[in-house]
Amino acid sequence: MKDVNVFRLPMAGPDDVSELAKLIENGTVDPKEICAIIAQTEGDGYARGYSALNFELMLSEKMNRTRKEVSDQIPMLMIGLTGGLMSPHYTVFTRKEVEAVETTEKRLSLGIQLTRVLLPEEYGTRTQVLLVAEAVKNAMVEAGIEDVSDVHCVEVKCPNLTAARVADAVSRGKKVVSTNFADAGAKSKGASALGVALALGEISDEDVTDAAICSNWNLYSKVASTSAGNEQVACKVIVMGNSKTSVSKYKIGSGVMKDTLDVDGAKTAFKSAGLVFDEVIPQDQRDRIATVFINAGADAMGSIRGRRTTMKSDFLAGYKGIIAKAVINAIVGAMIGDTMILASAGFEHQGPLGSNLVAAIVKAD
Amino acid sequence: MKDVNVFRLPMAGPDDVSELAKLIENGTVDPKEICAIIAQTEGDGYARGYSALNFELMLSEKMNRTRKEVSDQIPMLMIGLTGGLMSPHYTVFTRKEVEAVETTEKRLSLGIQLTRVLLPEEYGTRTQVLLVAEAVKNAMVEAGIEDVSDVHCVEVKCPNLTAARVADAVSRGKKVVSTNFADAGAKSKGASALGVALALGEISDEDVTDAAICSNWNLYSKVASTSAGNEQVACKVIVMGNSKTSVSKYKIGSGVMKDTLDVDGAKTAFKSAGLVFDEVIPQDQRDRIATVFINAGADAMGSIRGRRTTMKSDFLAGYKGIIAKAVINAIVGAMIGDTMILASAGFEHQGPLGSNLVAAIVKAD
Amino acid sequence: MKDVNVFRLPMAGPDDVSELAKLIENGTVDPKEICAIIAQTEGDGYARGYSALNFELMLSEKMNRTRKEVSDQIPMLMIGLTGGLMSPHYTVFTRKEVEAVETTEKRLSLGIQLTRVLLPEEYGTRTQVLLVAEAVKNAMVEAGIEDVSDVHCVEVKCPNLTAARVADAVSRGKKVVSTNFADAGAKSKGASALGVALALGEISDEDVTDAAICSNWNLYSKVASTSAGNEQVACKVIVMGNSKTSVSKYKIGSGVMKDTLDVDGAKTAFKSAGLVFDEVIPQDQRDRIATVFINAGADAMGSIRGRRTTMKSDFLAGYKGIIAKAVINAIVGAMIGDTMILASAGFEHQGPLGSNLVAAIVKAD
Amino acid sequence: MKDVNVFRLPMAGPDDVSELAKLIENGTVDPKEICAIIAQTEGDGYARGYSALNFELMLSEKMNRTRKEVSDQIPMLMIGLTGGLMSPHYTVFTRKEVEAVETTEKRLSLGIQLTRVLLPEEYGTRTQVLLVAEAVKNAMVEAGIEDVSDVHCVEVKCPNLTAARVADAVSRGKKVVSTNFADAGAKSKGASALGVALALGEISDEDVTDAAICSNWNLYSKVASTSAGNEQVACKVIVMGNSKTSVSKYKIGSGVMKDTLDVDGAKTAFKSAGLVFDEVIPQDQRDRIATVFINAGADAMGSIRGRRTTMKSDFLAGYKGIIAKAVINAIVGAMIGDTMILASAGFEHQGPLGSNLVAAIVKAD
Repeated sequence: MKDVNVFRLPMAGPDDVSELAKLIENGTVDPKEICAIIAQTEGDGYARGYSALNFELMLSEKMNRTRKEVSDQIPMLMIGLTGGLMSPHYTVFTRKEVEAVETTEKRLSLGIQLTRVLLPEEYGTRTQVLLVAEAVKNAMVEAGIEDVSDVHCVEVKCPNLTAARVADAVSRGKKVVSTNFADAGAKSKGASALGVALALGEISDEDVTDAAICSNWNLYSKVASTSAGNEQVACKVIVMGNSKTSVSKYKIGSGVMKDTLDVDGAKTAFKSAGLVFDEVIPQDQRDRIATVFINAGADAMGSIRGRRTTMKSDFLAGYKGIIAKAVINAIVGAMIGDTMILASAGFEHQGPLGSNLVAAIVKAD
Repeated sequence: MKDVNVFRLPMAGPDDVSELAKLIENGTVDPKEICAIIAQTEGDGYARGYSALNFELMLSEKMNRTRKEVSDQIPMLMIGLTGGLMSPHYTVFTRKEVEAVETTEKRLSLGIQLTRVLLPEEYGTRTQVLLVAEAVKNAMVEAGIEDVSDVHCVEVKCPNLTAARVADAVSRGKKVVSTNFADAGAKSKGASALGVALALGEISDEDVTDAAICSNWNLYSKVASTSAGNEQVACKVIVMGNSKTSVSKYKIGSGVMKDTLDVDGAKTAFKSAGLVFDEVIPQDQRDRIATVFINAGADAMGSIRGRRTTMKSDFLAGYKGIIAKAVINAIVGAMIGDTMILASAGFEHQGPLGSNLVAAIVKAD
Repeated sequence: MKDVNVFRLPMAGPDDVSELAKLIENGTVDPKEICAIIAQTEGDGYARGYSALNFELMLSEKMNRTRKEVSDQIPMLMIGLTGGLMSPHYTVFTRKEVEAVETTEKRLSLGIQLTRVLLPEEYGTRTQVLLVAEAVKNAMVEAGIEDVSDVHCVEVKCPNLTAARVADAVSRGKKVVSTNFADAGAKSKGASALGVALALGEISDEDVTDAAICSNWNLYSKVASTSAGNEQVACKVIVMGNSKTSVSKYKIGSGVMKDTLDVDGAKTAFKSAGLVFDEVIPQDQRDRIATVFINAGADAMGSIRGRRTTMKSDFLAGYKGIIAKAVINAIVGAMIGDTMILASAGFEHQGPLGSNLVAAIVKAD
Repeated sequence: MKDVNVFRLPMAGPDDVSELAKLIENGTVDPKEICAIIAQTEGDGYARGYSALNFELMLSEKMNRTRKEVSDQIPMLMIGLTGGLMSPHYTVFTRKEVEAVETTEKRLSLGIQLTRVLLPEEYGTRTQVLLVAEAVKNAMVEAGIEDVSDVHCVEVKCPNLTAARVADAVSRGKKVVSTNFADAGAKSKGASALGVALALGEISDEDVTDAAICSNWNLYSKVASTSAGNEQVACKVIVMGNSKTSVSKYKIGSGVMKDTLDVDGAKTAFKSAGLVFDEVIPQDQRDRIATVFINAGADAMGSIRGRRTTMKSDFLAGYKGIIAKAVINAIVGAMIGDTMILASAGFEHQGPLGSNLVAAIVKAD
């Protein structure tokens, strides 16, 4: 049996890992038990690396290990770019073996897997889909999750094309999916999401063609949140679900907001995680929330419920991902009185176009 | 007695006034009865002027009057800059005299006044406060509103300093409140808001000193929304409230969200306007909503409920007003299932720091 | 014979057409002789329409014609988005018939043509290339230019795809080149540039395939500057060159800066137009400059002379066109001591990748 | 006698310190001799810290010292935010004692000093001016520079106000110069520049009043470039000049561009450093350039040579410092065919308003 714990901690900047350091120093967290860190970093994309480096340095010192050993042990998923009321923070997951006990219900469990290194020409292709699917299945086994309906959130960090990688592919006579890096990145994220969908039976193997990626929007996962980074060479997969093999005091649930105004979808997520409420979440139930992960999809759309928006057309269109995150963070944040919750952008096969995926981790009552 | 009508219409761009043209053409709106247009325009600041010019041109043709005559008859308040789920649109108010009838309750009424032209050195000073206060009082008389508690929204458009105006003041040996145009603009908006507060008895005459403007944040109005524009030379005041002299089918109500997550404050506004609901606003009550005006205040704060945000510190800080509007639009929009509602930024003495002011116009049941 | 005159005038905002109004009022410009207005407008894209509307209104009044008549007579090319030291302004071209005189050298002449309305599915295709090529040839005839080497600048404004236009094509069972509007816009601009190249013999008919557009960068024109706008439905072509049929006091010349630092390329343009200097342009020669049109290409590249830049990778990448214009404006502006010169972005087949095209109009000595 | 060496090295990202690592590994650079690193980092402000951390980590490993020891030995000046053609890079200065030799001319020498820690209430005040002045004088002594005219560049990094620092001051009953952090930062930079000016005799002691800082623009230094960072608690001063005590193969020179188009001012700088040319710098002289440091001032102005610009008024106004750097980098870069030169923004008392300060380090012939 496993015990999984969750610590959501604020950061004063991308370089601030002091709150975790304190928990380690006062014995609350044993760094050897840390199995993943998921951060919402402010600043630009470089702040992700900056933040990860600071975690590595601090943990390397606390654990008396090399930075390489730390980063091998602990996958760090840095979700960059904050806006609006989003509050920079990170969630630390710990996991330890405990003696088998009688359990009455499934509890939070994590599976963490890495695919093999992908070749640049494989980014955004069926090959990536299959590799991610395999990693998700392995992660389910690792997490002790048998039923796909017990998987509520799958975070995937996958590689981006870069000039050097295109050159590498070209030097071997290979073709990449697109030399437009934005398009190629979208396809990498899309392939990762389809990999989750395939593993969870949300789509079938024959759906998965190169042509379908970032094209057939009827294919999607309801629990995938994927992002791409230049620093990645393989796909990092974190599966979160509920398992009989866990004695965690936490449970996870999820729901789909069919559009950004669909608060009922968010309520479904909180209820699925075990919160008890009718229309409004009362304070005692809010207090049970450990954290919330949202995958934002508003940037896929130029309108909502028949109302035209300027998300994709105005002079801030270059930042539409940030703004999509800011608005969903505000809406869900207003439901629970707290905006220190994670929002990730990326609509590619992550739910139906324009939807938002909400996963909530809450204390079991 | 007066009858006041409200038409909320979408626009496909700052130059699109076709929906109003249609209503005039099919007889729904008599252009001679139009008493105000309040628009939420996309694009940058210039789009405000572009939009106003298009309204003038179309109305000048429909009414067979000069553009000058049109703009003299119809104050146009263009609130620029949209973001997130905000949907560009405009609200047309019409007003006509009707025969006296027995009324059971106070209904929506408007008073519209213009102060005298202000000298540049008066912008952001006690003089501006007093002029706006006088205009508000006159507008209340015009609207037939006797009780200040019946005033629910006061929109003020006031002048901004420009290089030419500073030069003018200097040439007459006068000093402006600040040669930093952003600071001077803030003080102009702040002075306007304090003018509303003074007229409505929310502050007292002795509170109003030059030094207090944009400094003593304990002074504020709970119903003022002010914005400044380079094109203004006087302060344009639109008072909206409920009056015994109106037979409008609409009522207006208001409420203060003490911070951006305070959905209870928004509910107060809708209930004050007459909507009937417990926690969630049902569709039949949503259908009664004619429009909503929100004054956003999130850009005044670098944190919310103890959570640090990056609103004022990150690389999008230059657009924090737009983002503050986008998040409050999203939150209130999610409550009513519609984001085609107006949001204006400007925290200066418009509610307590960090608050949002919500005014709702709804069909009387 | 024709006399062509050039007036470069500053604007205080997109709505400021007062300088031209003054020239009309004092008799310097006869509005009936205006054959084109090319403006560099500040603000966002909407400011282009705002500016054009203001020109139409003013000219309609001065000429006692309808706005439609004005816009039919006078093509207005509004180049939006300014940055850095760029100074908003417009250039007015007038043209009138004069009695034949003995001429010693070719002088500035303009040809202005409009293609037929393009169907959305034709945007960015060989069809557009051919239509633009035909228009350029007709414009050369109109301008009295026989030799393609006498053409020094061809400005083309072409249509952009919009959601409505895609819908229109789809409704007729047609496919557009891309439903990504940015890609489609690039192809529209690219096709226009190839049209110029084809007309001028810089490429051959067999080069012009749908596949080559925005793909084979070895195809380009050295004198084309193209931009796309949602408001266009046809391609507007302005050919500028030198002709024996003109008695203008101006000449035009051009040159290619092979990269943004290639000041020698810019010198070639000024010398080609007739300026006399060795390395530095002296004040008396600067005084001969009527205006300069530059097509910027720096936004096509992520490096210059082996030095990596952040033009395409940093958080301002969404504005790379503006920044590319700002830097070339600064470099050429520093050569002539004046930044009130026009810069247009758009690298698609407008010169070799990364180049800048410079056209200078100067007073004949 | 001292020998000072200069290495200008490209970086592929804020975390890339590999070029210096290579020079250390191949014996070209002895890390113990490194006396300063000045970097031009891309990304947002956080990338500065990220970059510095990477230098510390690499050098700590190469030198077998702690990160603290490294940062104590080597001041690192990270100038953040790049735009346009600016190319991220860093300049490494080394210094070592050598035996006395006969010298014929003064050569490049550096003095590096740190003021005491400033209290938040001292930021932007006369106290800061005096402390910086003292540090500059000490740095001149350290550098062996006796004559103020031999000082050609003084880089100062000084502290910014933060919320925590304001709280600290308030808790001790003290007042900071402004609670608007942008204003306070400007005053901190301004005070630093005046400190340089005072030390070099460009202003007199009586000029230095609290009120003059960021107000009396007639006071300035022609060689100061100052920037402020939240991470600083004291002022870091790097004085660069020519000294008889140096046998460096480099010399430094400087010049003032009175506005951004004043290329003659830049030529003065290159000639002052010893380059030999008439109007255009030929390749053999360009090859002598080790690096160039520019302090940009275009963001102080809304016009240039009578031409209005949109630098301070348009929707990119929030990034005007970046854009001011991009345009001056382009202009000077075009003069020498290389944009991998440093540009820093900050007009506060750093030259006359609107000027640009250019310092060039070149190989002695």
